Amino acid sequence: MSSNLHDILTRLKAGELSIRQALGLVEGFERTSDGSALLDTERRQRTGLPEVIYGKDKPYDNLRCIVEHLLETKRELLVTRLNNDIAEKLAQEFSLQHEPLCGAVSKLDVDKELLGLVLLLSGGTSDMHVVKEVELACRFFGVRIEVHTDVGVSGLHRFFSVEPKLKEADALIVAAGMEGALPSVVAGRVAVPVIGLPVSTGYGAALEGVTAMLAMLSSCAPGVSVVNVDNGVGAAAAAARIAFGKRS
Amino acid sequence: MSSNLHDILTRLKAGELSIRQALGLVEGFERTSDGSALLDTERRQRTGLPEVIYGKDKPYDNLRCIVEHLLETKRELLVTRLNNDIAEKLAQEFSLQHEPLCGAVSKLDVDKELLGLVLLLSGGTSDMHVVKEVELACRFFGVRIEVHTDVGVSGLHRFFSVEPKLKEADALIVAAGMEGALPSVVAGRVAVPVIGLPVSTGYGAALEGVTAMLAMLSSCAPGVSVVNVDNGVGAAAAAARIAFGKRS
Amino acid sequence: MSSNLHDILTRLKAGELSIRQALGLVEGFERTSDGSALLDTERRQRTGLPEVIYGKDKPYDNLRCIVEHLLETKRELLVTRLNNDIAEKLAQEFSLQHEPLCGAVSKLDVDKELLGLVLLLSGGTSDMHVVKEVELACRFFGVRIEVHTDVGVSGLHRFFSVEPKLKEADALIVAAGMEGALPSVVAGRVAVPVIGLPVSTGYGAALEGVTAMLAMLSSCAPGVSVVNVDNGVGAAAAAARIAFGKRS
Amino acid sequence: MSSNLHDILTRLKAGELSIRQALGLVEGFERTSDGSALLDTERRQRTGLPEVIYGKDKPYDNLRCIVEHLLETKRELLVTRLNNDIAEKLAQEFSLQHEPLCGAVSKLDVDKELLGLVLLLSGGTSDMHVVKEVELACRFFGVRIEVHTDVGVSGLHRFFSVEPKLKEADALIVAAGMEGALPSVVAGRVAVPVIGLPVSTGYGAALEGVTAMLAMLSSCAPGVSVVNVDNGVGAAAAAARIAFGKRS
Amino acid sequence: MSSNLHDILTRLKAGELSIRQALGLVEGFERTSDGSALLDTERRQRTGLPEVIYGKDKPYDNLRCIVEHLLETKRELLVTRLNNDIAEKLAQEFSLQHEPLCGAVSKLDVDKELLGLVLLLSGGTSDMHVVKEVELACRFFGVRIEVHTDVGVSGLHRFFSVEPKLKEADALIVAAGMEGALPSVVAGRVAVPVIGLPVSTGYGAALEGVTAMLAMLSSCAPGVSVVNVDNGVGAAAAAARIAFGKRS
Amino acid sequence: MSSNLHDILTRLKAGELSIRQALGLVEGFERTSDGSALLDTERRQRTGLPEVIYGKDKPYDNLRCIVEHLLETKRELLVTRLNNDIAEKLAQEFSLQHEPLCGAVSKLDVDKELLGLVLLLSGGTSDMHVVKEVELACRFFGVRIEVHTDVGVSGLHRFFSVEPKLKEADALIVAAGMEGALPSVVAGRVAVPVIGLPVSTGYGAALEGVTAMLAMLSSCAPGVSVVNVDNGVGAAAAAARIAFGKRS
Amino acid sequence: MSSNLHDILTRLKAGELSIRQALGLVEGFERTSDGSALLDTERRQRTGLPEVIYGKDKPYDNLRCIVEHLLETKRELLVTRLNNDIAEKLAQEFSLQHEPLCGAVSKLDVDKELLGLVLLLSGGTSDMHVVKEVELACRFFGVRIEVHTDVGVSGLHRFFSVEPKLKEADALIVAAGMEGALPSVVAGRVAVPVIGLPVSTGYGAALEGVTAMLAMLSSCAPGVSVVNVDNGVGAAAAAARIAFGKRS
Amino acid sequence: MSSNLHDILTRLKAGELSIRQALGLVEGFERTSDGSALLDTERRQRTGLPEVIYGKDKPYDNLRCIVEHLLETKRELLVTRLNNDIAEKLAQEFSLQHEPLCGAVSKLDVDKELLGLVLLLSGGTSDMHVVKEVELACRFFGVRIEVHTDVGVSGLHRFFSVEPKLKEADALIVAAGMEGALPSVVAGRVAVPVIGLPVSTGYGAALEGVTAMLAMLSSCAPGVSVVNVDNGVGAAAAAARIAFGKRS
Repeated sequence: MSSNLHDILTRLKAGELSIRQALGLVEGFERTSDGSALLDTERRQRTGLPEVIYGKDKPYDNLRCIVEHLLETKRELLVTRLNNDIAEKLAQEFSLQHEPLCGAVSKLDVDKELLGLVLLLSGGTSDMHVVKEVELACRFFGVRIEVHTDVGVSGLHRFFSVEPKLKEADALIVAAGMEGALPSVVAGRVAVPVIGLPVSTGYGAALEGVTAMLAMLSSCAPGVSVVNVDNGVGAAAAAARIAFGKRS
Repeated sequence: MSSNLHDILTRLKAGELSIRQALGLVEGFERTSDGSALLDTERRQRTGLPEVIYGKDKPYDNLRCIVEHLLETKRELLVTRLNNDIAEKLAQEFSLQHEPLCGAVSKLDVDKELLGLVLLLSGGTSDMHVVKEVELACRFFGVRIEVHTDVGVSGLHRFFSVEPKLKEADALIVAAGMEGALPSVVAGRVAVPVIGLPVSTGYGAALEGVTAMLAMLSSCAPGVSVVNVDNGVGAAAAAARIAFGKRS
Repeated sequence: MSSNLHDILTRLKAGELSIRQALGLVEGFERTSDGSALLDTERRQRTGLPEVIYGKDKPYDNLRCIVEHLLETKRELLVTRLNNDIAEKLAQEFSLQHEPLCGAVSKLDVDKELLGLVLLLSGGTSDMHVVKEVELACRFFGVRIEVHTDVGVSGLHRFFSVEPKLKEADALIVAAGMEGALPSVVAGRVAVPVIGLPVSTGYGAALEGVTAMLAMLSSCAPGVSVVNVDNGVGAAAAAARIAFGKRS
Repeated sequence: MSSNLHDILTRLKAGELSIRQALGLVEGFERTSDGSALLDTERRQRTGLPEVIYGKDKPYDNLRCIVEHLLETKRELLVTRLNNDIAEKLAQEFSLQHEPLCGAVSKLDVDKELLGLVLLLSGGTSDMHVVKEVELACRFFGVRIEVHTDVGVSGLHRFFSVEPKLKEADALIVAAGMEGALPSVVAGRVAVPVIGLPVSTGYGAALEGVTAMLAMLSSCAPGVSVVNVDNGVGAAAAAARIAFGKRS
Repeated sequence: MSSNLHDILTRLKAGELSIRQALGLVEGFERTSDGSALLDTERRQRTGLPEVIYGKDKPYDNLRCIVEHLLETKRELLVTRLNNDIAEKLAQEFSLQHEPLCGAVSKLDVDKELLGLVLLLSGGTSDMHVVKEVELACRFFGVRIEVHTDVGVSGLHRFFSVEPKLKEADALIVAAGMEGALPSVVAGRVAVPVIGLPVSTGYGAALEGVTAMLAMLSSCAPGVSVVNVDNGVGAAAAAARIAFGKRS
Repeated sequence: MSSNLHDILTRLKAGELSIRQALGLVEGFERTSDGSALLDTERRQRTGLPEVIYGKDKPYDNLRCIVEHLLETKRELLVTRLNNDIAEKLAQEFSLQHEPLCGAVSKLDVDKELLGLVLLLSGGTSDMHVVKEVELACRFFGVRIEVHTDVGVSGLHRFFSVEPKLKEADALIVAAGMEGALPSVVAGRVAVPVIGLPVSTGYGAALEGVTAMLAMLSSCAPGVSVVNVDNGVGAAAAAARIAFGKRS
Repeated sequence: MSSNLHDILTRLKAGELSIRQALGLVEGFERTSDGSALLDTERRQRTGLPEVIYGKDKPYDNLRCIVEHLLETKRELLVTRLNNDIAEKLAQEFSLQHEPLCGAVSKLDVDKELLGLVLLLSGGTSDMHVVKEVELACRFFGVRIEVHTDVGVSGLHRFFSVEPKLKEADALIVAAGMEGALPSVVAGRVAVPVIGLPVSTGYGAALEGVTAMLAMLSSCAPGVSVVNVDNGVGAAAAAARIAFGKRS
Repeated sequence: MSSNLHDILTRLKAGELSIRQALGLVEGFERTSDGSALLDTERRQRTGLPEVIYGKDKPYDNLRCIVEHLLETKRELLVTRLNNDIAEKLAQEFSLQHEPLCGAVSKLDVDKELLGLVLLLSGGTSDMHVVKEVELACRFFGVRIEVHTDVGVSGLHRFFSVEPKLKEADALIVAAGMEGALPSVVAGRVAVPVIGLPVSTGYGAALEGVTAMLAMLSSCAPGVSVVNVDNGVGAAAAAARIAFGKRS
């Protein structure tokens, strides 16, 4: 894919690149030392967003290889959906930040300039795990995030207290569990793009977030688009694409 | 069940009762002439509500027997969920009112005194079939009904315009299709009992009303109870039980 | 929302209110010390029912802030759906009652006058967790509750032994797991409002209470309205709205 | 399978059998003239029950071949689940009885002695299509059937009026739509085997009979076994197996 | 229900009955000492089968009361679906047999005469938990049970090795997980009543036994009736009703 | 809501406004002549998008009132999801454009300036009904739309032929039925916001578009947000919010 | 993709190719005259199988363009899943064969040599629509197909009569509706690759073929792979890939 | 089944066979010492593949008997889906290899010649448990397996880097979780048989692998056949049948 092959080979010859680095530049991905993962080194260039490592179900040995590889070549990293035991182990081995509410480990550049503004509204206070994942992902992607929790529809005056701020945002992420009604209300009040983020809070008929997801998809307020249940990274990525696009 | 057997036999002997009528008084139900239906003659006495005939899937001949039987002994009747061709045929044969929006035929006593007050709010204007069924059932049960349509959550100011009236009601029926969010908003605003009535309006993720039903059952506003999708008769019956109880 | 702004400011100036209290009176909600929860201080005034705290998935630190805040300003509180370890910890820290059957902690005023009468029937003895949640919620809301367990449809004579008492109630809560048939039988026998409470008891085709929920929603006896699976608080709230309405 | 090969060949040679008949005796099935169907000629011998032809989705030409073939070799036949247009056409071409309520055509020997006794209870009068299919199948299988409709749980006294007869039956088929509660009540009252027959009557949460099916499978009364939604033939076959076994 | 009231009162007066026993005879059920359970003392008389206690979700204290009560008045008992810790505790406290494979405790009369013959076929060796529950329940009900495991459809010759024995049974219970195909094969081979018992063995598309359940309900072989997933007690009860009916 | 009440009353008095117009300005909505619909006159002002009328399930008489009302006050209108018979009737009565592929009628200002650029990619040629709805909605909202059909994943070189154009768009709508894989591929290639639009094309396991919807929500490519199955209006609205936001 | 660009341009210049043909050779697909479809001209070269046109939901005008285009450039074509009215219209306009059982139109080269051998077994005679689609697709792909219908599990001796032929096949397609048990039986008997083809035959618990599909996926016989419900083309394609691979 | 009965009896008499061995040869299966399992000794002969023992839900004592029996008579064995505690215990007792990633124990002949070539592609690195099960099963069946992980659709260039190797394989197994899109892309590029292996990786809308399974079954690329979620053994068996067939 990368056409400047001559340049890469020159740098390899000059010892500026290792063979693995050169291979990565030619192929557009890098193989971890155990060979199992092909890290997508051109993803940021193509999609504007660096790769978040999805940690769920990955064996510890694979995770170690991936983290080690990324720390060699990147200033920042974010691994999500880890079992907290594994997260703690990784955090200690590689001096990373561990956020137990959402099972994430991260190394983030706190001095990085953040662009745009994403507002996250959440219906209650049982969805902190998702709020945290959105916050981490926004910071990793480089977009500014502001959070207002517990403004759900059973006490609408709480929502109205934050309504005036909504218009300043590039995009709104509206998280809600149970009946998932908040995005419909929000999308009926503002012109800003609204991303519905269903949360697994609830029980019985809430079907672990599937009801909220279906409800948001069925919203009577046009212009709500929806991501997977508890998908904080996905909501942040969708919002960041919008915020960055506005600035490009 | 009926203990006054002596009295019934006396009236039978005196010719004041037919054998079928006497049998009905003793057994608590009456057999239609084709033998297929056992009309529950004590239902109003037990439950406060006369029997609504559910017409769906009943063969025409059975329907005829039931209607004929009821017209002999009752001043009013309501048959719902009819195919409109069958409804029209029944309406013409027995001089009944036919409401095509919800496939019902009825004979209602317009001079009957109506008790209490039930308010029906509906989210849009695609649920007229359900609105009509609620209205007919409330009138048949003998409870006063007032309707406010098109006050859904994508334009909340429409809801606020009717909010002051809600407190006067004995019970609220809140109908909504798609994401079914309106009952949560309403139940967060008033102390009146709220009956959620999910409507089959919508497509795709709305799952023919099942999403609205699940959303209402998952409501974050406590005290919403829910009836089946499009179940106008059931919502009216639940509301009438509350309204009548308040007066008893 | 609160229009008596002048009065609030006067009391603030006079030192009768803290800034946080004044803010809560103006806004209609109060922010906990960690900022995550907005406690809906006007809920009782609007809906007749004080706020029950839903404890599931809330981080311990948020729960502490909420409980601490409520204990400062309220005489009673009820937190439900807690993991029992967390419940025990909260109970000890704040001297609360811990009910392990339903994972609740509470502080209830035992001398408070209870109004009305709610009857709870349950089909078996595997649904004690739900029975307990209904009892706690009714007492918290201030409505009298009486319980009859194990009167399910596989031995109907047990139900008939309690039937005479049903008419005295303002509302009936009928809890059942497995096939969820009891509400249909009950609603066919009395005029009192019937709230179906599906329970997660059962396995396989019982689908963790969803079958009972669907069955109750499909009831052939008109006037059954239904709450979420195991939703003791919701059933109690719906019953309390009815009982209080009758008395208003 | 058939071991008396010598005998078959002798009869073939003597002209007592056609080649197709001989082939059928050797193979245990007979090929229709268009080759598409292999009629299971030994089924009655193996299972005690003659083969009912399931007509749904079969092209008309195949149906003709099957009916023609059976009429050559059998005194009786039953084809179910036909589109009524196709049923009428078959009935006229082959002088069969057409029952439009359940889309069946049949030729039944009215003088055949019927064995045992199966009782069919049904909850309402919207399930006549299923009642008819059970009746036809029982007669075809050779078992006596008695029907009591409209004895559902919303008016239990109707059920109690038939209860004394239940003990005389070899097996009970209990049909119910909507919440499907009747089999639980019945199985708690008698020792006779109870076959639950869920019916597709209802709408919304009734899920076209699936809710009744799940509810019957979750019955709290032990000893209810269940057949497919609207499966009148299957319920009749299960009942006949029991009735015949008792007599063998 | 019990009409011989005079006799009961005479025996009470004479000290032959405690008040609780007398109450139980009059009412047809007995209240456990904690008041939560109403033991159905007439169930065997009505349905031919003694009551199996369903242990799942019952608090330990309720279980203790029930077991204690039953041991006072019955020679045998069976409690199923217990967590094995609770089962072990109960077994030790009351000297009961504990079967850990299916979480049951029992006290069975080994000298009791067993009637009839039920055959249990199972598809594999991953369904021993269900096999054990069927065995215990059959013995408790008083019916003879014979078991043949691992005769599933992926190696049909194993099934054919047991086929000759099938005809001797009063009823067949055919247990299968995964695709649940075995009952169709069996019902195509014999005239004996076939009860399909779906098992939760499998993963993914097996949907924890729901696929096997749906497959058995959709069987192309008429006369298969089905019980809930893993419902060994229910299958045994259905088979016992058939076996006892045959002998009555 | 509208504070300039004095001004409205002045214009009313001066005869510049009808009473209904004045009422609409004060309340923020207008009541149609039959009273059933409350048209949300401030929606464009609040959300940037004019109201699309959802026609499904609306009775013809209500539709007529709505269309008549809108034509009096608006230059453009769009009604979607009509039965084509009703659509044709409306189109003729009010001289509207009828698009039978998606059951829409419209009156669009062809000279209106269109802003931004939305690109619609679709996987096949069986989703023309959705493509048409997106096109109409984009034109109604005032955003430029460009369409590339039949670029699905089974022949990826077709997608690569349009890839260079993707970066010019403000937002991409990616429509796909069956397995719904195209949005994942697209979102892995560009930085533009990607809106997944699942289409009901397919059969069996495609579950009428639900599989495509679930697949898009589960996308491994971060930043895909999803609208309801066949929801062309919703996808267009989400895209328009993004495109307009970029320009504001 | 195609590297022989010089050759293509030479032939274009010489008039041997039209511009559209040249464009198709360069791009690897051809645009139909209405621009909506991009026909994948290299599919056979890449995948060994020519493109079958999926006709469902395609507007008639698009279908005409596609068929016209293909007839100009190909000797054979197959369009499936057409509404039979549209199929008949296409067949007449373009002199194609119309197979109404499966809604297909085709032009097939009857003299073409067929390779390999695929055997199709089907459980009953209600699945002729699927059998026909498999036959047409196999002939179109160029693989020999042999069909044995009505060999389902309720009469296993019918299956055994065809068993000896199975080993001669390159691949087996085993079609079954209802409980979908046949593939498990077959895969336990032979070493040939088995492709399960679930059929929508059945009702209720058969869930329109989904139960058969889930059952086949849960098969206890290893090596069954499954295609979508009623997907005759897909089963034929999978079988053809195997048959052709064996010969390559 | 085995016809050479004389030979078996001769060897038994000569002491060359134990009674159990002789019985196994006659019956075609062998009974383990505890009688619960009937090991299918002719499976390899019939299906080309030795029996893999499915360990899930099997009690430890049954597993011990099976493993002991197999080690007496076979050179290799594979037991899958074990709880890792049980797996470790078995591995130590019988000196087997334990692979904790997929809960398998095995004894494999490393010197055995492997035939054919199966290629396994997987979308990510969260599906190692499935990759391992495929690898073990292929080696047990005797087919050569080559693995390429992390080549999913969100970075297609990774897939293109392995594309040239695909044509050398006899069959491709394409594993993917989440949206399960990879098999569609692969099947559009090559003529080799493609077996889709859905993986349970993901959350929420991924429905534990069911979404990937449904998506693969709905693939727009013809010729993808699918096995159960996480069914590594099944995918390997399907691939081995193809690879062996090609060589026979």
